[in-house]
Amino acid sequence: MKILKVKDLISIKRTVDSGTEQQRAAVKEIISEVREKGDAALIEYTEKFDGVRLSSLSVTEEEVDEAFNEISEQFVSIIKEAAENIRAFHEKQLRPSWMTTDKTGTILGQKVTPLASAGVYVPGGTAAYPSSVLMNVIPAKVAGVERIVMVSPPGRNGKLPPAVLVAARIAGVKEIYKVGGAQSIAALSYGTETIKPVDKITGPGNIFVALAKREVFGDVDIDMIAGPSEIAVLADSTAKAHEIAADLLSQAEHDSRACSILVTTSEQLAKDVSLEVEKQLSDLPRKEIAAQSIADYGAIYVAEHMDEAVETINALAPEHLEIITENAIELLGKIRNAGAIFIGRFSSEPVGDYFAGPNHVLPTNGTARFSSPLSVEDFQKKSSIIAYSQTALEQNIDKIAAFARLEGLEAHARAVEARFKD
Amino acid sequence: MKILKVKDLISIKRTVDSGTEQQRAAVKEIISEVREKGDAALIEYTEKFDGVRLSSLSVTEEEVDEAFNEISEQFVSIIKEAAENIRAFHEKQLRPSWMTTDKTGTILGQKVTPLASAGVYVPGGTAAYPSSVLMNVIPAKVAGVERIVMVSPPGRNGKLPPAVLVAARIAGVKEIYKVGGAQSIAALSYGTETIKPVDKITGPGNIFVALAKREVFGDVDIDMIAGPSEIAVLADSTAKAHEIAADLLSQAEHDSRACSILVTTSEQLAKDVSLEVEKQLSDLPRKEIAAQSIADYGAIYVAEHMDEAVETINALAPEHLEIITENAIELLGKIRNAGAIFIGRFSSEPVGDYFAGPNHVLPTNGTARFSSPLSVEDFQKKSSIIAYSQTALEQNIDKIAAFARLEGLEAHARAVEARFKD
Repeated sequence: MKILKVKDLISIKRTVDSGTEQQRAAVKEIISEVREKGDAALIEYTEKFDGVRLSSLSVTEEEVDEAFNEISEQFVSIIKEAAENIRAFHEKQLRPSWMTTDKTGTILGQKVTPLASAGVYVPGGTAAYPSSVLMNVIPAKVAGVERIVMVSPPGRNGKLPPAVLVAARIAGVKEIYKVGGAQSIAALSYGTETIKPVDKITGPGNIFVALAKREVFGDVDIDMIAGPSEIAVLADSTAKAHEIAADLLSQAEHDSRACSILVTTSEQLAKDVSLEVEKQLSDLPRKEIAAQSIADYGAIYVAEHMDEAVETINALAPEHLEIITENAIELLGKIRNAGAIFIGRFSSEPVGDYFAGPNHVLPTNGTARFSSPLSVEDFQKKSSIIAYSQTALEQNIDKIAAFARLEGLEAHARAVEARFKD
Repeated sequence: MKILKVKDLISIKRTVDSGTEQQRAAVKEIISEVREKGDAALIEYTEKFDGVRLSSLSVTEEEVDEAFNEISEQFVSIIKEAAENIRAFHEKQLRPSWMTTDKTGTILGQKVTPLASAGVYVPGGTAAYPSSVLMNVIPAKVAGVERIVMVSPPGRNGKLPPAVLVAARIAGVKEIYKVGGAQSIAALSYGTETIKPVDKITGPGNIFVALAKREVFGDVDIDMIAGPSEIAVLADSTAKAHEIAADLLSQAEHDSRACSILVTTSEQLAKDVSLEVEKQLSDLPRKEIAAQSIADYGAIYVAEHMDEAVETINALAPEHLEIITENAIELLGKIRNAGAIFIGRFSSEPVGDYFAGPNHVLPTNGTARFSSPLSVEDFQKKSSIIAYSQTALEQNIDKIAAFARLEGLEAHARAVEARFKD
């Protein structure tokens, strides 16, 4: 891995893939076909892109039962325990509607309401990602969303991966469809005979899914368009090189565009980690992807002192941050920008990917400067409450009318004045 | 106003103005010029679009002092009181960082951090909108944003409207620039010699501002792109027609595309309001705008019963909702979708535009289904905290590694295992 000085810091930000002209046109056509032809278009596209002609889009209860037979009991119980941890953490995010009252009788407040429905996209392809099901569904469930719909492209056998179906039932999804790509996003946004539209769509997908989400945004809500995964490790001389190297590689194996960075005050650690990364790379199953990622986006920065190292982290605003230093928790107050902060050497990043409880859907590409992890609040919205009393209006009517007139809005002033004009 | 049955309900949604090809090209060019030439480009564009050649972009302390001389003391005190109300309401939205602990020593939680900086756009043109300054700046201030920057296009005299400067100082803005349009959004996003970049941009603007915000989104955060204003009034036979008509017109005068709707269980009220609207229209200063809006987007829906009326409101998902019925507050639990809910006849909508305290930046165009009023939380972000203990990792390492391997991510499994491999 390259070892650099902090002054040579390169931004973590990469150009967002906004697709080719051809891809964007294809997505627009798919959306318009689904809006026009409904289920028939979904069946056609599934045959074309996923290589299977379905007689029904819906996953049946029996198919989910069957999935439980195909997964080991041990694994079912791991998924259940992970779901429990995720649920417990997200329940802590719940906050009530609230109000203030005053002596005149006026009530002001905020009403918190869950979205009526949410759609979760689960990517298909060679691997199954049950963790993605748990991380997207459970916050919606905890928020109180009544209707949660899952969509995922079927394999050539016309089925969804058993681990995904098992995770869906454990998370509490009752409505699952075998459809993926831009066509599934169109169906969730505008509805078909079988799939009723939802209020919000979350979950990762390929470039066609990402472009479709961009296209429908405004008609429905969407989550962020996620970029490649990132990790930054902040470490001093007390850290162990082989642990840090292993954590850097756990991000690098995701994607050849993933970004793994060490920022350290120890020149010795920098050298040791660099060697360890090369060593551990050699027998990784996904070593080609990981090696490419480390070569293109990996870097080790050596800082003069801890304050400089912390500033480097804040400038990077990484998706995942590990702090492996003496008294790591004392640095927490100085960290401004990071999606998730892993403190101490036993908080290896994969602990958060699957099991600990906090969400693994996190802001990437420097957006931790202004964005937050996926949460219960993403599946609720608020309404302001204003119940003004007669006394309050009498006391303030002249001020409100004067303010309106200053802004040139006479009908606003007359509206409040109409109350005392009987 | 047209009187319709609920079954003829038309959606409140209007096509979002995404600009002409020419406008979009112009915005891209402006952004690229500002990125390349910095202040010089800002000065050039201000001369071209606002008709004034500035020697300095910054508003000085003296200019703000002067603004206070041009505004009546009475009005300064109204702005101060409004600011106080808005601050008090938004302070109630503050929530702390939190954590959970367990017996093994593991700490999980969320750290709440204000954005480092925010930019507020204040539109120029014929009227001054001090309320927009208060509603955008105060939530950022309460959130703890350290650097708040205001931009607004100067008049031909090279100045900003005194009411806007007065509101800015009262709200606590210290950094103000005389620049508007797409060029100001580019400056706030990428920085120039004078204007350092910010993390988030909020505030309404014309089509060029809206297109520029769309263009820079991702590099900085933005608020929603607001559509034309909307009001829906839910009323029964106890409501007074002249009050409802006045409230409908207060939205209609904003914009010829504004939308004003009454949903009522009373056929008599429907007729009376329709007549009252015509009557009150006749001597409004902005009657042409209001009349156009009422003709194109105004409607009165008569419902069979209150439940049908409530469902109509939920389907509309209006920006502003007034409930003027017997026991209005009892309907609150049934309202799912509305930006702000005004309860009872003394809660005329303009009360919320200026003075009561809740934010007047609200979701439009049906997005109240999934969006919330502008709030303190829009100027904060969260980071997950995971401080796993050695005991917790020992207890769970096999499960985490098994989960990772099920998803085909060997390096993830090895990362956690590296902790006990000394």
